[in-house]
Amino acid sequence: MVRVVALVVAVFVAEVAALWPAPRQLQKGSSALRLSSAFSINVKVPNAPGDLHDAAGRAAYWIKNEKMERLVVGRGAADAKAVAASKWLSGLNVVLAPGALKALPIASESVKAVGTRDEGYTLTIPATGAPATLSANTTLGLLRGLTTFQQLWFVHGSDTYMLGAPMTITDAPAFPYRGFMLDTARNFYPVADIKRTLDVMSLVKLNVFHWHIVDSQSFPLVVPSMPELSSKGAYGSSMVYTPADIADISKYAAVRGIDIMLEIDTPGHTSVISQAHPEFVACPGFDTWQHWANEPPPGQLRLANTSVIDFTSKLFKAVASQLPGKLFSTGGDEINAACYTEDAVTQAALKASGLTFSQALQTFTDKTHATLRGIGKTPAVWEEMVLDNALPLPKDTVVLVWISSQNVASVASKGYRIVHAASDFFYLDCGLGGWVGDCAGCNSWCEPYKTWQKIYSFDPFNGTTADQAHLVLGGEALLWSEQTDAASLDDTAWPRGITQAEVFWTGANGSDGKPRSGQEALPRLHDIRFRLVQRGVRARALQPLYCALRDGVCDLNA
Amino acid sequence: MVRVVALVVAVFVAEVAALWPAPRQLQKGSSALRLSSAFSINVKVPNAPGDLHDAAGRAAYWIKNEKMERLVVGRGAADAKAVAASKWLSGLNVVLAPGALKALPIASESVKAVGTRDEGYTLTIPATGAPATLSANTTLGLLRGLTTFQQLWFVHGSDTYMLGAPMTITDAPAFPYRGFMLDTARNFYPVADIKRTLDVMSLVKLNVFHWHIVDSQSFPLVVPSMPELSSKGAYGSSMVYTPADIADISKYAAVRGIDIMLEIDTPGHTSVISQAHPEFVACPGFDTWQHWANEPPPGQLRLANTSVIDFTSKLFKAVASQLPGKLFSTGGDEINAACYTEDAVTQAALKASGLTFSQALQTFTDKTHATLRGIGKTPAVWEEMVLDNALPLPKDTVVLVWISSQNVASVASKGYRIVHAASDFFYLDCGLGGWVGDCAGCNSWCEPYKTWQKIYSFDPFNGTTADQAHLVLGGEALLWSEQTDAASLDDTAWPRGITQAEVFWTGANGSDGKPRSGQEALPRLHDIRFRLVQRGVRARALQPLYCALRDGVCDLNA
Repeated sequence: MVRVVALVVAVFVAEVAALWPAPRQLQKGSSALRLSSAFSINVKVPNAPGDLHDAAGRAAYWIKNEKMERLVVGRGAADAKAVAASKWLSGLNVVLAPGALKALPIASESVKAVGTRDEGYTLTIPATGAPATLSANTTLGLLRGLTTFQQLWFVHGSDTYMLGAPMTITDAPAFPYRGFMLDTARNFYPVADIKRTLDVMSLVKLNVFHWHIVDSQSFPLVVPSMPELSSKGAYGSSMVYTPADIADISKYAAVRGIDIMLEIDTPGHTSVISQAHPEFVACPGFDTWQHWANEPPPGQLRLANTSVIDFTSKLFKAVASQLPGKLFSTGGDEINAACYTEDAVTQAALKASGLTFSQALQTFTDKTHATLRGIGKTPAVWEEMVLDNALPLPKDTVVLVWISSQNVASVASKGYRIVHAASDFFYLDCGLGGWVGDCAGCNSWCEPYKTWQKIYSFDPFNGTTADQAHLVLGGEALLWSEQTDAASLDDTAWPRGITQAEVFWTGANGSDGKPRSGQEALPRLHDIRFRLVQRGVRARALQPLYCALRDGVCDLNA
Repeated sequence: MVRVVALVVAVFVAEVAALWPAPRQLQKGSSALRLSSAFSINVKVPNAPGDLHDAAGRAAYWIKNEKMERLVVGRGAADAKAVAASKWLSGLNVVLAPGALKALPIASESVKAVGTRDEGYTLTIPATGAPATLSANTTLGLLRGLTTFQQLWFVHGSDTYMLGAPMTITDAPAFPYRGFMLDTARNFYPVADIKRTLDVMSLVKLNVFHWHIVDSQSFPLVVPSMPELSSKGAYGSSMVYTPADIADISKYAAVRGIDIMLEIDTPGHTSVISQAHPEFVACPGFDTWQHWANEPPPGQLRLANTSVIDFTSKLFKAVASQLPGKLFSTGGDEINAACYTEDAVTQAALKASGLTFSQALQTFTDKTHATLRGIGKTPAVWEEMVLDNALPLPKDTVVLVWISSQNVASVASKGYRIVHAASDFFYLDCGLGGWVGDCAGCNSWCEPYKTWQKIYSFDPFNGTTADQAHLVLGGEALLWSEQTDAASLDDTAWPRGITQAEVFWTGANGSDGKPRSGQEALPRLHDIRFRLVQRGVRARALQPLYCALRDGVCDLNA
């Protein structure tokens, strides 16, 4: 009898293991519950939008087809007795909370301005077999609840079951911006790979796909009014994103609760534009790239030239207007001074205008940002724009801190809204070695590899005072693609790149109200990793399976 | 006219880019040559074994289906004129060299004792359209030539073509052991993944699959006379290698020119045996694993007990007799002294026998190795067995140097045959971060990530004097699987894990007789990486495609 009690306790602990990110509040019992063969998700929302029905359909599909066994020795055999005695759950009712406004499509809720989206939900699952209920103020909240519900289920034999019933989850994100960045310029990714990436993001409630779509190496984005950029700058005629692709990906993301922040990095990182418009680019070519850029090929927009400002404004407008979201990144990182100092055209333009370089940069930024604001967009920039270059940008500008997490304090002190993207925590490409061709002793510039433990240890309020805490929008993991393309996308990105989903959804404390702990998190991260594998995502193993099956035994202090 | 000459020169240089490893001798012209639609590989060997016909069939299949475009700007468009003017190659004749002995199956040649295999071949390709000729003394040499021939072809539009005709290649390996090690115990790999791994190895002339099949975490190997080892020690009933799987993989490897060196690591790395035979294992369990092992779970064979020696001998015999190759690794690394010191059973056995621990280890090793030698096998061991433990093993024992490349000199000074497997050059798992559960500050023990450049820079004669050079059998890249399973196998292993294929096939000098250079090698490594991708292998990108299309421009000294 004592032994049975011990078993129940073990089950009780392991049940929490299924959820990533951990919900803010979780109350649970100690019963099993199994899915009826007639189980259905019933959308009981008046005039429910089609994308909510679709989301319910996807959730039901994965609950039935994921076939996830529990990560314990015996893979669920020890649960069989409890499951055999459990009730059958016949359905999940999906409803709007009392007093909620009229349901809008998920796709509309997903692209509202960051900080104005309502993603909260309540999920109640009785142990009696009575229908479960998912309730929220918005369809976006209902979508988030559906992703939680999907993660509760395991299979053993012919049973699909959960543990920990009855269960009540009351949940909402700690931070409004929870992102993942992909660079599709150093290497190209087909649309299917981007969609698979969005699927992963949605499952863990990440809500911003920061798409670094072009860079010095290639220009895969087809801009209808400026077709020369991709026809001359893409890696190949099939390695492009057409307007139809952008619309397709944009919709695919939005119905999954994901806003897209597209980035056209300027004025640096633009060498490729020289292939279509050599007159707009300073210091292209690669003979002396180390002098002009941090990586090949060098080339920066001649920002002091009026024609370049006009070109850039036109480009921003043409691209940004294709996407429904508010945020648009104009980049601004790694401006190389020597490139401009040595460019006769830029020097002549500065002389003619009587502007210093800093003034010219400010004019370029003001004008191009004004174009974006004119079509309802809010600019985002890398940290140098407000630190090294010290531009007095409007305070609603979103600043991504990337060089070091130590720079957050400086950005916060200037009063800008902050997205944590620091290379010392969130760069998934670090540690994969130097990639220049001829250097056996070269390591990654941002050694070491950022482990999930490192990402998980991040304090979302790092670098801010209590007064400045409201400036923290959230954070993102970033995958720069010098050494990654579609072949190695999944295991470079996941599961490390979902670790920040919990840092910024769950916040500083876990469901139990205590500070988050990597030791507590690991079994749940194993779970979501194996769920991804079940869904065809090639996420990397975190440990030997021996460890994944035995919570805690591979901890240092075991 | 000058421009045309320049183009020819460019073509001439790029043509070499297709081959990995570089052949020992290569003479080439400047003509294109295209494949006739009637092209066939004609095996003209008397009583040709079936596996030679099969190998020719596979080569023909890939030449027609690989669809590899040239890695240059325009992807071969610039070759169109030369190709349109070129001759059609109708066939490749595959023949034994004059005076060659009767043809044996490739599978028989592949498993001869290391150092006694004849892998050389000559390949002659006229530019006239007359049939090409592949000639060798053995079917194994013919197989190697077929892998070279496959790498010569590109597609553009409807043409399959090569550059650099007429071409004559005279080739043979610099070293007889060129390996890749996979650990299938920390995490399990399905048979299909192992076969795909063997396909990659064969394409680049790697000839030893060092299969670290079991370890402390799991025992996936089904031993018919000892079924309890896998029934209790495998990760699951479907995560095993049955005798049929072993026979299947063994044959699959042998017909592709690959010998399998299986490893049953003893006396350490055997915790899992305690699940079936607790009486044989000291210090199992994980409460204090850091004290008893370098990673969880601890557990070592009670080697001082006669019953354990008998068990180990029986196990070695049962396993080794399933494979046709001569080499069999008995491991011997990382013996933890505290585990034995604190094990009362071991201490009692030592006391009863009057042996020191060293003497007991020698007895254990002598007896188990004698069993292997009794069935015609040659033992291989990790370096500690002849260094730290200083066992006086017979000098034909093969010693794998893994802790550091600096230890080669000590092993060489004792006169053992050496396989380079040093963690500072060849460990593909290094740099992926610490994997224990609760340590945000932990990095990989063998930082940094081993880049292809690092592997490529290895001197095969490292640590040996001219007198000792004959002791160097070759080397291998190693993938330990704490953080890798089937999901991330391909891009963790490749293309880094084929870099050593050139180090040990081509040797210190390239085809041009000059010392190998990473700068010269990179375009060819890109080529073979993209060929692997065309074959469905998810090998990691080495650089932005921008660099892959432009030889040398992403070098530091560009």
